[in-house]
Amino acid sequence: MSKGLPKRSEDYSLWYNELVKRADLAENSAVRGCMVIKPYGYSIWEKMQAELDRMFKKTGHTNAYFPLFIPKSFLSKEASHVEGFAKECAVVTHYRLKGDPSGNGVVVDPEAALEEELIVRPTSETVIWSTYKNWIQSYRDLPLLVNQWANVVRWEMRTRLFLRTAEFLWQEGHTAHETKEEAQEETLRMMNVYAEFARNFMALPVIKGIKSESEKFAGAEATYCIEAMMQDGKALQAGTSHFLGQNFAKAFDVRFATRDGGLEYVWGTSWGVSTRLMGALIMAHSDDNGLVLPPKLAPIQVVIVPIFKSGEELQAISEKAAEIMEKLDAVGISVKFDGRDTFKPGWKFAEYELKGVPVRIAIGPRDLQNNTLEVARRDTLTKESIQLDQIDLTDKIQTLLADIQNNIFQKAKRFMDEKTTMADTWEEFVEVLDNKGGFVSAHWDGTAETEERIKEKTKATIRCIPLDRDGDQGNCILSGKPSAGRVLFAKAY
Amino acid sequence: MSKGLPKRSEDYSLWYNELVKRADLAENSAVRGCMVIKPYGYSIWEKMQAELDRMFKKTGHTNAYFPLFIPKSFLSKEASHVEGFAKECAVVTHYRLKGDPSGNGVVVDPEAALEEELIVRPTSETVIWSTYKNWIQSYRDLPLLVNQWANVVRWEMRTRLFLRTAEFLWQEGHTAHETKEEAQEETLRMMNVYAEFARNFMALPVIKGIKSESEKFAGAEATYCIEAMMQDGKALQAGTSHFLGQNFAKAFDVRFATRDGGLEYVWGTSWGVSTRLMGALIMAHSDDNGLVLPPKLAPIQVVIVPIFKSGEELQAISEKAAEIMEKLDAVGISVKFDGRDTFKPGWKFAEYELKGVPVRIAIGPRDLQNNTLEVARRDTLTKESIQLDQIDLTDKIQTLLADIQNNIFQKAKRFMDEKTTMADTWEEFVEVLDNKGGFVSAHWDGTAETEERIKEKTKATIRCIPLDRDGDQGNCILSGKPSAGRVLFAKAY
Ligand SMILES: [Zn+2]
Ligand SMILES: [Zn+2]
Repeated sequence: MSKGLPKRSEDYSLWYNELVKRADLAENSAVRGCMVIKPYGYSIWEKMQAELDRMFKKTGHTNAYFPLFIPKSFLSKEASHVEGFAKECAVVTHYRLKGDPSGNGVVVDPEAALEEELIVRPTSETVIWSTYKNWIQSYRDLPLLVNQWANVVRWEMRTRLFLRTAEFLWQEGHTAHETKEEAQEETLRMMNVYAEFARNFMALPVIKGIKSESEKFAGAEATYCIEAMMQDGKALQAGTSHFLGQNFAKAFDVRFATRDGGLEYVWGTSWGVSTRLMGALIMAHSDDNGLVLPPKLAPIQVVIVPIFKSGEELQAISEKAAEIMEKLDAVGISVKFDGRDTFKPGWKFAEYELKGVPVRIAIGPRDLQNNTLEVARRDTLTKESIQLDQIDLTDKIQTLLADIQNNIFQKAKRFMDEKTTMADTWEEFVEVLDNKGGFVSAHWDGTAETEERIKEKTKATIRCIPLDRDGDQGNCILSGKPSAGRVLFAKAY
Repeated sequence: MSKGLPKRSEDYSLWYNELVKRADLAENSAVRGCMVIKPYGYSIWEKMQAELDRMFKKTGHTNAYFPLFIPKSFLSKEASHVEGFAKECAVVTHYRLKGDPSGNGVVVDPEAALEEELIVRPTSETVIWSTYKNWIQSYRDLPLLVNQWANVVRWEMRTRLFLRTAEFLWQEGHTAHETKEEAQEETLRMMNVYAEFARNFMALPVIKGIKSESEKFAGAEATYCIEAMMQDGKALQAGTSHFLGQNFAKAFDVRFATRDGGLEYVWGTSWGVSTRLMGALIMAHSDDNGLVLPPKLAPIQVVIVPIFKSGEELQAISEKAAEIMEKLDAVGISVKFDGRDTFKPGWKFAEYELKGVPVRIAIGPRDLQNNTLEVARRDTLTKESIQLDQIDLTDKIQTLLADIQNNIFQKAKRFMDEKTTMADTWEEFVEVLDNKGGFVSAHWDGTAETEERIKEKTKATIRCIPLDRDGDQGNCILSGKPSAGRVLFAKAY
């Protein structure tokens, strides 16, 4: 906190990196592409996890745990799956080190080579479906609604804290169903769970849609996703839900005795969100002073900073603060009192702004005399003096937190709406992408070839075919061929 | 649930393996030594995690996350640490697969060899202390009280579900302190947290002690542990807490500016418990009918089984059950109603006994007429009829659950006490180990040599030097040399 953050308007990317580090969210580790999630960052992730876990359980899912390692041969069993993941796998080839014969340190023991190499899971469809083969015999065993919280590894060459790291934390749901319809419903249900979580907890508006064939998950029949808009006009995929059809059931021979005495392949889904959501949360709401956290995910919702010159003043203010903390704590509001005398109030103000604490209460000696408080809100950076004789503080803070949560969402929603532009010609399309950024709603002829050419020319990809698009027909902005409706393009993280 | 479990008295080991699988706790996976933790087993682990996490936070710790991979060179930085872990490491050597030139499947791409191999963490001291170097500059940065929930890998050759697996789940606390005394206090504090958790939640009595030099953690100055007694008379180490001295601070050059302007190495601790606790929980309490779960860790505390012949009867019983569930749910008791008509009551009784559900309520048509219930408790396998006109069911069940929790603990405590024997001669010592089993409290001359000879002759190891041993002096059971006090020997998992 010695100097200010870089400004978003000057260098968005540098602003993000510095913010992540200075707000104690995460940092790069000694291992290329792997991050350390620092305690403050992790405590936000924990709040996300707790809520998502609650939502998964409410929709009938239970947690389980599957192995970190996947036999190499498993990956090959589903053709497009191996295609999608083989190029970025961490491969375990040996199971022992030994002293370096030439002197110091250790070397891999060549005599301890594995018969079959193991892949550190990039995702767990293969190892899970190989297990499901034993768990599923009859329709009575279905549906199987399982989720796993785990770490996964994808050997990305260009990494970015939270957004793209070699190792990341996530949850992956893997479900098995009797019918195609049931699996499709599950796929949509979980996309909707993600969208609700983004909206209600992250204060993040999202577009729900379906991925184009080229962008769908390796091994899926269809990939649904939620897409969010960041402050620099780039899109971010915040969660995906895949309808797997019978692909993995066929790859791992998972069949079940049907109600009418037949034998059929099981229908599957998988769905996941990851620590990437932390990146979305940070980039969607924060400002040049630091993080702006929605109260529902803030580890500290209210901080109390005493303004004092003497030990007696601090003592008196501490007593007042203790009363307030007790009241707020009783209604489930998390409050911190920062009574350190090694830092000045101004330093603390800046520190808690950097950390995104939604509400700051300052108490000075005059406040004690007048029975007042200064209450500042992080989202608008405004403050007001509260006369405690006239106001129920608990009500006031609860209302304020709800208002901040809502205000952050509305602001992000307005921003996304403003950053969504219809384009009907190629010139418009390029112009919007180059200058305004954001989502561009445009006609596309539906071919992978055109999609690829657009990407080459503009770096924009089809983020999704929105579920709520109206079916207005038109002509592809690039090829001019007929289009069945608009899709959303954007440059993306 | 087609046939009964093997009996403990006939084949304890087979009984354990079968119980773990049939009660849906865990199973072996396609990857050697790696287990799948099944939903029911995982839900017990989640309850353990939740309580431990609460206890860690209450003692001032916060969670964070550090990388899965450790650069090979890091391991060598602390000499005894590498010695302890090098021989059982999963080693990542490559980061890409490619299509097999000879036809099908994929092979490791030889062009994608890592410059430095990465070790899948067997424990995280090295990667964490390399991070702490950047986090700690001054005494103001101390203490640093961090915990991590993670998976770790130790390439064990002989594995056993929960007890010894190549991959396991655990938590590892890593703390850094200004003074030796503070670090020692922390080491003891966390050992005590583990002991309290074992006693109050797992209903598991434990002996607190310190490990001998040969048994201590690779890289520690001292290792404290809690040791439990299983029903077959073997001991199980249920948790360890290490005083690291300045070993890792020196290995990673972590120094801090002291209060008086000096520069000193930081003092460290680390402590952990793992999914091994699941093994301890199962082996300590279960019987020939299946699991016996302490109510505080039971995912389902009460199951209601309807006894019915017709759909009308089921309907009427379901309504009664719904009333009961609402009442019990309101006081935080987890209840399940099993109204399936595809399974008979007797089958369900056996199934929930196998799964260790503490309380079973059966309701038949006559119960509806008489306003009665049959309540059975899993620990004693006894049942009684409850007249609802006379008894508050909620109170009754709450009292019953508390009583079961206590009874399971007392039973295990009596068992451990009975299985703890003093031996004063070598003949007695061998006799007890061979026939009675359990802990043997005996004099030892304090040398690693004698310890090793005893282990070779009897397979018994020093489980710990109990913290509460009285200082009665004597003579080593093997060497006859003077001993400063008794230590606990046992054969162990
Ligand atoms: Zn989309
Ligand atoms: Zn011990």
